[in-house]
Amino acid sequence: MTDAALSPSAPLSRADLDLIDGYWRAANFLSVGQIYLLANPLLREPLRKEHVKTRLLGHWGTTPGLNLIYAHMNRAIKARDLNAIYIAGPGHGGPGLVANTYLEGTYSEFYPAIGRDEDGLRKLFRQFSFPGGIPSHVAPETPGSIHEGGELGYSLSHAFGAAFDNPDLLVCCVVGDGEAETGPLAASWHSTKFLNPARDGAVLPILQLNGFKIANPTVLARIPREELDRLFEGYGYRPITVEVTDPEDHDAAHQAFAAALDDALDDIKRIQAEARAGSGDDGAATAERPRWPMIILRSPKGWTGPKTVDGKRTEGSWRSHQVPLSNLHEDPEHLRQLEEWLRSYDPDSLFDARGALRPELAALAPEAERRMGANPHANGGILLRELDLPDFQDYAVEVKQHGRESSEACRVLGGFLRDVMADNEEHANFRVFGPDETASNRLGAVLEATGRTWLADAEPGDDADLAPDGRVMEILSEHTCQGWLEGYLLTGRHGFFSCYEAFIHLVDSMFNQHAKWLKTTRQIPWRRPIASLNYLLTSHVWRQDHNGFSHQDPGFIDHVVNKKADIIRVYLPPDTNTLLSVADHCLRSKHYVNVVVAGKQPALNWLSMDEAITHCTRGIGIWDWASTDTGGEPDLVLACAGDIPTLETLAATAILREAFPELRIRVVNVVDLMRLQPSSEHPHGLSDREFDALFTRDKPVVFAYHGYPWLIHRLTYRRTNHHNIHVRGYKEEGTTTTPFDMVMLNDLDRYHLVIDAIDRVPGLADRGAHLRQQMVDARLRARAHTRETGDDLPEIRDWVWPFD
Amino acid sequence: MTDAALSPSAPLSRADLDLIDGYWRAANFLSVGQIYLLANPLLREPLRKEHVKTRLLGHWGTTPGLNLIYAHMNRAIKARDLNAIYIAGPGHGGPGLVANTYLEGTYSEFYPAIGRDEDGLRKLFRQFSFPGGIPSHVAPETPGSIHEGGELGYSLSHAFGAAFDNPDLLVCCVVGDGEAETGPLAASWHSTKFLNPARDGAVLPILQLNGFKIANPTVLARIPREELDRLFEGYGYRPITVEVTDPEDHDAAHQAFAAALDDALDDIKRIQAEARAGSGDDGAATAERPRWPMIILRSPKGWTGPKTVDGKRTEGSWRSHQVPLSNLHEDPEHLRQLEEWLRSYDPDSLFDARGALRPELAALAPEAERRMGANPHANGGILLRELDLPDFQDYAVEVKQHGRESSEACRVLGGFLRDVMADNEEHANFRVFGPDETASNRLGAVLEATGRTWLADAEPGDDADLAPDGRVMEILSEHTCQGWLEGYLLTGRHGFFSCYEAFIHLVDSMFNQHAKWLKTTRQIPWRRPIASLNYLLTSHVWRQDHNGFSHQDPGFIDHVVNKKADIIRVYLPPDTNTLLSVADHCLRSKHYVNVVVAGKQPALNWLSMDEAITHCTRGIGIWDWASTDTGGEPDLVLACAGDIPTLETLAATAILREAFPELRIRVVNVVDLMRLQPSSEHPHGLSDREFDALFTRDKPVVFAYHGYPWLIHRLTYRRTNHHNIHVRGYKEEGTTTTPFDMVMLNDLDRYHLVIDAIDRVPGLADRGAHLRQQMVDARLRARAHTRETGDDLPEIRDWVWPFD
Repeated sequence: MTDAALSPSAPLSRADLDLIDGYWRAANFLSVGQIYLLANPLLREPLRKEHVKTRLLGHWGTTPGLNLIYAHMNRAIKARDLNAIYIAGPGHGGPGLVANTYLEGTYSEFYPAIGRDEDGLRKLFRQFSFPGGIPSHVAPETPGSIHEGGELGYSLSHAFGAAFDNPDLLVCCVVGDGEAETGPLAASWHSTKFLNPARDGAVLPILQLNGFKIANPTVLARIPREELDRLFEGYGYRPITVEVTDPEDHDAAHQAFAAALDDALDDIKRIQAEARAGSGDDGAATAERPRWPMIILRSPKGWTGPKTVDGKRTEGSWRSHQVPLSNLHEDPEHLRQLEEWLRSYDPDSLFDARGALRPELAALAPEAERRMGANPHANGGILLRELDLPDFQDYAVEVKQHGRESSEACRVLGGFLRDVMADNEEHANFRVFGPDETASNRLGAVLEATGRTWLADAEPGDDADLAPDGRVMEILSEHTCQGWLEGYLLTGRHGFFSCYEAFIHLVDSMFNQHAKWLKTTRQIPWRRPIASLNYLLTSHVWRQDHNGFSHQDPGFIDHVVNKKADIIRVYLPPDTNTLLSVADHCLRSKHYVNVVVAGKQPALNWLSMDEAITHCTRGIGIWDWASTDTGGEPDLVLACAGDIPTLETLAATAILREAFPELRIRVVNVVDLMRLQPSSEHPHGLSDREFDALFTRDKPVVFAYHGYPWLIHRLTYRRTNHHNIHVRGYKEEGTTTTPFDMVMLNDLDRYHLVIDAIDRVPGLADRGAHLRQQMVDARLRARAHTRETGDDLPEIRDWVWPFD
Repeated sequence: MTDAALSPSAPLSRADLDLIDGYWRAANFLSVGQIYLLANPLLREPLRKEHVKTRLLGHWGTTPGLNLIYAHMNRAIKARDLNAIYIAGPGHGGPGLVANTYLEGTYSEFYPAIGRDEDGLRKLFRQFSFPGGIPSHVAPETPGSIHEGGELGYSLSHAFGAAFDNPDLLVCCVVGDGEAETGPLAASWHSTKFLNPARDGAVLPILQLNGFKIANPTVLARIPREELDRLFEGYGYRPITVEVTDPEDHDAAHQAFAAALDDALDDIKRIQAEARAGSGDDGAATAERPRWPMIILRSPKGWTGPKTVDGKRTEGSWRSHQVPLSNLHEDPEHLRQLEEWLRSYDPDSLFDARGALRPELAALAPEAERRMGANPHANGGILLRELDLPDFQDYAVEVKQHGRESSEACRVLGGFLRDVMADNEEHANFRVFGPDETASNRLGAVLEATGRTWLADAEPGDDADLAPDGRVMEILSEHTCQGWLEGYLLTGRHGFFSCYEAFIHLVDSMFNQHAKWLKTTRQIPWRRPIASLNYLLTSHVWRQDHNGFSHQDPGFIDHVVNKKADIIRVYLPPDTNTLLSVADHCLRSKHYVNVVVAGKQPALNWLSMDEAITHCTRGIGIWDWASTDTGGEPDLVLACAGDIPTLETLAATAILREAFPELRIRVVNVVDLMRLQPSSEHPHGLSDREFDALFTRDKPVVFAYHGYPWLIHRLTYRRTNHHNIHVRGYKEEGTTTTPFDMVMLNDLDRYHLVIDAIDRVPGLADRGAHLRQQMVDARLRARAHTRETGDDLPEIRDWVWPFD
């Protein structure tokens, strides 16, 4: 092929071909070097076994494909001045992304000890999958990464999350054909129905079809090509296939991939131009869903690696998944084969005498922040702009008396979120996420400020709030919501995720990975803090009268508190004003996962806004107005955390106060669950002295808790008075029934709390015997009424706090 | 249309049409009745508000579609003598399935109090979503159900699980267009690549495209029809679309759906016949992947319900999702509209004077076990056949001395599982599941007995164990594996799921739903126990030198123990023989979820098979051979649970024994984690006396635990000696590093355990000061060696138990 052969299907000149292949060889060489070498990084001397790592921990299989795409993206970025980031979906792609960010120079900028010379190469190789070094995934340590890929399935939802509200950004998202089998990935292809070509950036998915997982072929590589095309056409894309039929013919591969990339990028440019030309000042209103391009790259697993090892096919086989050659310290033939493999990249043609990438190759990389390893979108904290928050106090419900009037906490919060949305409209840096539940969760006021994002077909009669430029993101996939939100946060924006409490467990594992990302990035100096991931868990365990047992699970809190204390916050606001205060705090916070649990049904207001602020600032406190210990030592502590437990505790308090006016009762409410932990375990933890001051050293404590009761024991087992703490909570009982029947079935109801108190306060057994029997009777009566009428007794349903 | 009009596109005669429409109307009438009525079930008197429930908790939207499909399936079952079950994917389909099983008679057989007369109807209506009654989902209480649908996304994987190894079974699986947005559902369409038309049954997916979720249109209903067809063609199906363009024209709808169903069932019959004709005695070897039919039913949400309510479109809108008419006790117009709606079904034409379904309609239902509510596959315990288990002792590794030689526990287990597979081949009732990890998890011996199921394309050079008739199920989707396994178990077979420990969190929420199903079915007399769901969690937190931080999470145990104690078992076998004993026990057990955690790397054998059996039978015990308390009271208890903690504890024991020969050390090992709980909390729990006998009432206990340390506190906080229990475990530290560095980073290493002991045994501080410093130095030395060489010190790596 000559330079004259330039054409859309063969866009690279001979010189281009040689350069890009050189760059690719350099990246492949550095990748193999990382997996295998401790020393002799440029093979300036014959390879000996002492140059090779003893424990080989790395994954070659996916790497050459990632490297090819990176090299071609570099070319496109330079040619088109693109603002692009790279998401590597396949697991264990670390060597490739580290190699590429090293080649473009960003690695040495972030890690000056790893210079662009032979000694730097040696360190680069040694540190990989080595104690004290770096992981084999595209970890937080890797420049340019917002996506580790350690757990598969989230690359595409992260990519779309990054693209939302970033109109100039192109997210190149490599999807592995292994991860493409996962559910979260399979669902996330539909994200195009929520991406607005006018106001959002673009995602270019590249399905890397290398054919094999750890030990099996991949499904998508083993369906007929026509079927595969139809699948992606059905998902709404225009698939562009690049098939590497001859692994030796690099020219053909480069031409085909370059042509495909040009085709896709031209198409994206056209789509965006058309959408943006037609739009008004708001940048969005006329958007229609385009058929976005995507690329299918069918290339051999372990491409350019050993063809066969020990007589078995290796290139193009699952045997390339990890290390194609092993046992190098014992097997001289394997060692020889490794040297041959490394030398096949001709390192002397790639690196100069000092060990620096030759200038003609280095010139292929983009410059400064155009380098994908240096793009600030991949270190979102740099771009993070604080939200302009309205004063949450303006949304307060008036509370003249404690516990007399009701409001719907989530509905009031919806008004606050509406104005957060409106006030930050010009910066387009806030979105609300939820699986079809924003309105169901009573946050519908947000829809007054923006629409529900919808780029799929509209029909007559549709609600007006379905809009291409909406920023309420609803798809019936918690995985996709979570992935979008993570991508949005990781690129420096803010968000809020509301979800049914029971089903947030769907994203347990995604939460794990995000929490791990936060923990690790906190320890990386060049990574800047990002906005917190804020969950509102509502439609919670206690109010599943519509849904029953399958919708009851308060265990996400238990799951969350297993993660590092400096990342995790859990709030259980008992009423509307406390929810507002907590929400404001969460939206201001950085680099946490905030879990807020609050019901959506009408519920009594306990605290005025001033009281709520004080209470939330402390996170835990005595409610003096409900207590009768008048500042002294109580006979009994009634503690509560969560809205329903607070209601039942206050109702129990009222019964006890009426029956035993002389009993010194202390009511303690917990908003910030982490206050219960020892201060040594969590930064919010109370000191033992503070804890003792609230819970006493020796008085009975009846603790009504929102979730599984043993969590309270787990948090408090080291406290002085732990053996006196008696916890009631959810114990997996109940199904479709009334709200009060639910608490009764779990012994969390007011009557049972009174019984618990009578049984535990010394000396109350005799005096309380009559009341105790009344409580037993009241439970039976409530039960019978419910079974008879399907409803709670009016005096329970309509109960209010009877004191001033 | 006349009877003469019968044709493939209009297969129903006039009489057929009238009957099937009558049946459908009856089901719809009963569905509305359940949602709304307390009394006056046949409208024998004018509807008054006291006949209507005060709390309306039900979902009408999805119901008429489910009812239509059920009626037509009845016709097909009768016409073709099909053995079929019905899976209702959409949530809240309860009223429809209850109505249909009532109509066919199964409901009254299971619940005789609800007879087939007016009084029975009244009870049927009243109980729905009523305290003490039944949930609004297709719950365990619903005859014929193996799938609740309370959490969306698993219908199709359950359906395929049911079909595997059930060659005569047809699983009619209705997929909601809401749930179709979820990841697990999106992935599970690919299950056809694992379904063998020769040896497995068939799944007929019916996508119920009613257009709306709670508040939004659904994605699949809002893409062009051609795009939708391509999606399913890409998934490998032949979509057959039924589009209800005129909701009033029932004849057209019935004809179209009947024709589609006939088409699909003819096609399935042809596919199976071809596959089975070509096969040899083994019934499978020649199977190729067919293009299975599926049906897309596009019909209005809330079909046949109120067209408009309060002037707003309701039929065909999201407003039909729950109750189209509400506030009936206050709004006479709504009450009138409800009566009109109910009477539109013309109940007098459907039910006789007594309230029984008219005989000509009742005759439409299949008979006996052909009724979908009575099919024994949907009450799998009935069909459950015990596994023929080889004697696990035959697989024992020889252990002449404690802790001298190593084996790979999972590899040995693989041999046992291989023979379980082989010995039960003729009953075809055992499968092994795992996301591409059977070989990686060292269970590869299973592949000697059967292949990996693979119906996608084969290529030259493929491993011979990829086979259409394999029964090792591997897809890189934990959700799909879990769903298949649940479907397989729920229909009366056995299975085994091996998974990387960290990523089992992907199915946290699926586990929740299955555990809830088990808990509920245990309380339903006619439900028979099914085989346990057995998890082997391996590639666990302590051996992630390949993978790093993203692959470390031992929290599934914490998640599991939140569920009901009578369902949950957790085992931590410390070595090979104990793993064999535990596995045998789990495969014999019923109606549990068994979680077994065991590493796959070579590890020391502690117990001979006889000792292992004794130890596993007790679940917890003193290892006398390691202890020096010679039956008396110890100075120190070293407890451990998990293979790596056991190793470190024994190594610490050896150090302490050598340093302080007179110190009375007791080593306690825990296999069955639930033994730690009080007997009041778990059936396996030790009594306090037993616990005290093991852990003493007042001596220091250093407890090395596999997972998050606080779980041990949670399980033991009520025990006498709890304040002396000091737990070491995983605390989210470490990434890619050596095995010993991992335990050091989490303070679980032998040296730290010795320090913990010295710090806690009274009087040892002085005597132990020198040893303590040695331990500190040893940690530093180990760390330095690892950083230098990338490997553990040989004396650590090669350590064996030094005593006889």
